[in-house]
Amino acid sequence: MTRIAIMGVAGRMGRTLVEAVGAVDELTLAAGVVEAGSSLTGVDIGELAGQGRLGVLASEGLATVIDEFDVVIDFTAPQVTLENLALCAEHGKRMVIGTTGFSPEQLVQLDSYRESVPFVFAANMSSGVNLTLKLLETAARALGDAGYDIEIIEAHHRHKVDAPSGTALAMGEVVAHAIGRDLETHGVFAREGQCGPRTDKEIGFATVRAGDIVGEHTVMFATEGERIEITHKASSRMTFAKGAVRAAGWLAGREVGRYDMQDVLGLK
Amino acid sequence: MTRIAIMGVAGRMGRTLVEAVGAVDELTLAAGVVEAGSSLTGVDIGELAGQGRLGVLASEGLATVIDEFDVVIDFTAPQVTLENLALCAEHGKRMVIGTTGFSPEQLVQLDSYRESVPFVFAANMSSGVNLTLKLLETAARALGDAGYDIEIIEAHHRHKVDAPSGTALAMGEVVAHAIGRDLETHGVFAREGQCGPRTDKEIGFATVRAGDIVGEHTVMFATEGERIEITHKASSRMTFAKGAVRAAGWLAGREVGRYDMQDVLGLK
Amino acid sequence: MTRIAIMGVAGRMGRTLVEAVGAVDELTLAAGVVEAGSSLTGVDIGELAGQGRLGVLASEGLATVIDEFDVVIDFTAPQVTLENLALCAEHGKRMVIGTTGFSPEQLVQLDSYRESVPFVFAANMSSGVNLTLKLLETAARALGDAGYDIEIIEAHHRHKVDAPSGTALAMGEVVAHAIGRDLETHGVFAREGQCGPRTDKEIGFATVRAGDIVGEHTVMFATEGERIEITHKASSRMTFAKGAVRAAGWLAGREVGRYDMQDVLGLK
Amino acid sequence: MTRIAIMGVAGRMGRTLVEAVGAVDELTLAAGVVEAGSSLTGVDIGELAGQGRLGVLASEGLATVIDEFDVVIDFTAPQVTLENLALCAEHGKRMVIGTTGFSPEQLVQLDSYRESVPFVFAANMSSGVNLTLKLLETAARALGDAGYDIEIIEAHHRHKVDAPSGTALAMGEVVAHAIGRDLETHGVFAREGQCGPRTDKEIGFATVRAGDIVGEHTVMFATEGERIEITHKASSRMTFAKGAVRAAGWLAGREVGRYDMQDVLGLK
Repeated sequence: MTRIAIMGVAGRMGRTLVEAVGAVDELTLAAGVVEAGSSLTGVDIGELAGQGRLGVLASEGLATVIDEFDVVIDFTAPQVTLENLALCAEHGKRMVIGTTGFSPEQLVQLDSYRESVPFVFAANMSSGVNLTLKLLETAARALGDAGYDIEIIEAHHRHKVDAPSGTALAMGEVVAHAIGRDLETHGVFAREGQCGPRTDKEIGFATVRAGDIVGEHTVMFATEGERIEITHKASSRMTFAKGAVRAAGWLAGREVGRYDMQDVLGLK
Repeated sequence: MTRIAIMGVAGRMGRTLVEAVGAVDELTLAAGVVEAGSSLTGVDIGELAGQGRLGVLASEGLATVIDEFDVVIDFTAPQVTLENLALCAEHGKRMVIGTTGFSPEQLVQLDSYRESVPFVFAANMSSGVNLTLKLLETAARALGDAGYDIEIIEAHHRHKVDAPSGTALAMGEVVAHAIGRDLETHGVFAREGQCGPRTDKEIGFATVRAGDIVGEHTVMFATEGERIEITHKASSRMTFAKGAVRAAGWLAGREVGRYDMQDVLGLK
Repeated sequence: MTRIAIMGVAGRMGRTLVEAVGAVDELTLAAGVVEAGSSLTGVDIGELAGQGRLGVLASEGLATVIDEFDVVIDFTAPQVTLENLALCAEHGKRMVIGTTGFSPEQLVQLDSYRESVPFVFAANMSSGVNLTLKLLETAARALGDAGYDIEIIEAHHRHKVDAPSGTALAMGEVVAHAIGRDLETHGVFAREGQCGPRTDKEIGFATVRAGDIVGEHTVMFATEGERIEITHKASSRMTFAKGAVRAAGWLAGREVGRYDMQDVLGLK
Repeated sequence: MTRIAIMGVAGRMGRTLVEAVGAVDELTLAAGVVEAGSSLTGVDIGELAGQGRLGVLASEGLATVIDEFDVVIDFTAPQVTLENLALCAEHGKRMVIGTTGFSPEQLVQLDSYRESVPFVFAANMSSGVNLTLKLLETAARALGDAGYDIEIIEAHHRHKVDAPSGTALAMGEVVAHAIGRDLETHGVFAREGQCGPRTDKEIGFATVRAGDIVGEHTVMFATEGERIEITHKASSRMTFAKGAVRAAGWLAGREVGRYDMQDVLGLK
């Protein structure tokens, strides 16, 4: 059994992580950390997550539970995460990092722990998104130069402020790279009016914004006679929690080093 | 049995009409017209359409077969169609008109026959598209002012030169009209970059261009908790032929007057 | 401003209703009822729902707040709902009822209040599902006898124990009724092995069970050349809450009588 | 330039191959073969295919044009194909074989030519279907044992007599094999009535039959929080023609040996 600690256990992501850890037989929830001075210190983290009593109480600071876990999952903030990495290095612990927003300097600092801590770090922890990027690479290599038009359609909730989404652009980059194109040159991010027939090498994007859509991405490869569509649909933040928990289980047996979700999924 | 004549029987649409008429028990294919001087005059129009021998030979000019049919289906050119209308008025015949490209003056002329000929005229003969427009009107009235975001996604083949498609715009007009909005003010035809959150009243469009897609349109009504999507997918010109043939059967028992596909489908 | 009371405000549906009422300008949240003896009596119902302090405290029993609201929304249990109807009749209040599980006798009793209380009662409060049923009726009438094959595809989460879903069957009933067919005779609920070509009048069902899918239903009308698909996708119980809240707003100005969601949506 | 011969050039597949070869710059259409005694012997094969005059006349028998081509594409019948293989072995030619229906003995005979002829042989020539099988293998390995439910949904035209389709079963086999399951044990080919909750290891199938759908297959991997869907949609037999033509171009530079579409697509 691998013992898991969860940082920020009182937040939305933290609570979702409690539920996700509980669903995996090989893992046991051993500790949950809340902010210093929180009124939730000492409450049962199972009850906190709406999962019923687990007998594990919320603590202040990872140091206070350092002997109780094997792997800590951290979706907090860059400075907190870096401090936790130092602590893990000192005590031989492992770490799954879903934190975002690192500065370039902080990323260098983070990377330096690849010599002292086994850790998984990924911008997007979803197994599905990471697998989809791999599938797109395979598909683009097989079809991209054989007369297949490539289009990326994405849909998100009404509050999203940019278009296309970062994930759609990441998908476009993977596809473009696989077939030697350049998204800056060949990306067509919007079509309107008399735009003329489609060119062979363009990679088109279409954006939908509506309701509460968490995130849907489809990459279409179409030619005369057939279409292949690779689609990812996120329905809740559970997808990120489950990816992180999977990474935690995978990480238990690994040596010191920096890993990403492609390693966890066995896609390299 | 209603006897059908087909104008332009040697063309792609004409051949498709031969097949579509043959599939309806209540109709019999009675005449097929080709251009004056065509080398196909006198050939069996069943063989011409790849449907096997029918015993009906291609004729030059509708006048030569005027006693042999009850309803003529015409997808030719404005001037030819207007001449055929005059002929039908004179001989008590009926007409289904799928011809496009009429000038404003020609449309006035066409409309004048509503006093002398029973005829169906529609810009798009597809039963499905016409039904979809009706469904959109119902849906927009029920949801449009109740916090549902409206988005229209359309996909066509790589050769299409304009975006969004005319049918997508027609769908947008129906929706806008039903809820008292204006497509010029509220239509958002493309999104790119930092475009900010979606506004309540906008009607968004997304365009896909790829491969051999004949035409797919989806109108989405989305709010927190649910989505309704109304989709039309055309797979061949048979959809227009079947609509015209349906109109021909419906027209057989009608009085003098101008009708459209909403009449044929019983949607008024 | 219409003042709203929510029954069972501590439950999942109750909390969702708090959020849904808060999103509508014309409504004000005036009261929330919890079970007698609940430890939550007296807490702020906004905080209870994770929406921040609203200044409205949870009460025990609708009678205690009878002067504070205009319309009560009730998703509890048949006996509680019937008692609340009696209370509303006595005090001139209105009621939106999303409760399910009434016995035939209880339904008769409920119906008797159509003479004394303005109330909305529906088995499914979702605006989208109710609209979809209306759209299906229109589509089936226009296409059902014109050579269009009708198929119903539904997908739900892995825990669902029956197939097809009740909503899929309700959609099938609406379609069958509209075109004079009978689901018992013409419904094909599963296909496997050498089942032969499709017959003209069958209404086919296909069932998908996977993951956390809340509920997706598509009714397809397909013929040579085109397809029309009408799809409903539920993403959370918010869809039921929003329908109930919409009904509450609509009900404010109505006379005594029993109404359903078709009335609320203006679809009759 | 690689010179191509087409067997059965007067058939539907043959005509589609003429169009597909014409669309590839590196290939030239050099010969077309019709059945012995055909009235079409000597006609221009471009005109035959509705592509305009090409200056290549239909011949009787591959032997008569043996010096005029480099690769022959053959979608005829097993005995004809085996005779053509013998001819190609003798004259140093190459062959793309889309013929189906070989007996086990004929397959042994066919295989024996791997020592003397460079040839591509595949049950399904579609690039998209072959790529999809590869993507499914990758996805199943990454997700199949990580709590993702696997469902296969397929839709075909109303005339198809069996369910699920052969391609759907082939997809199921690939997925099952990749994760050590067995389709006979774990395949659930239809669901109806009180079938209980989904089991972890089942691979579900859902079948749609409607209209003129050429063939659509979706494999869904779903878990709490996300779905990945891999979809193939065929819109015409052009997909098989294009795959065969791609194989012909790829084969031009190969050594003696037996290849399949995975080789052609670079997926091995």
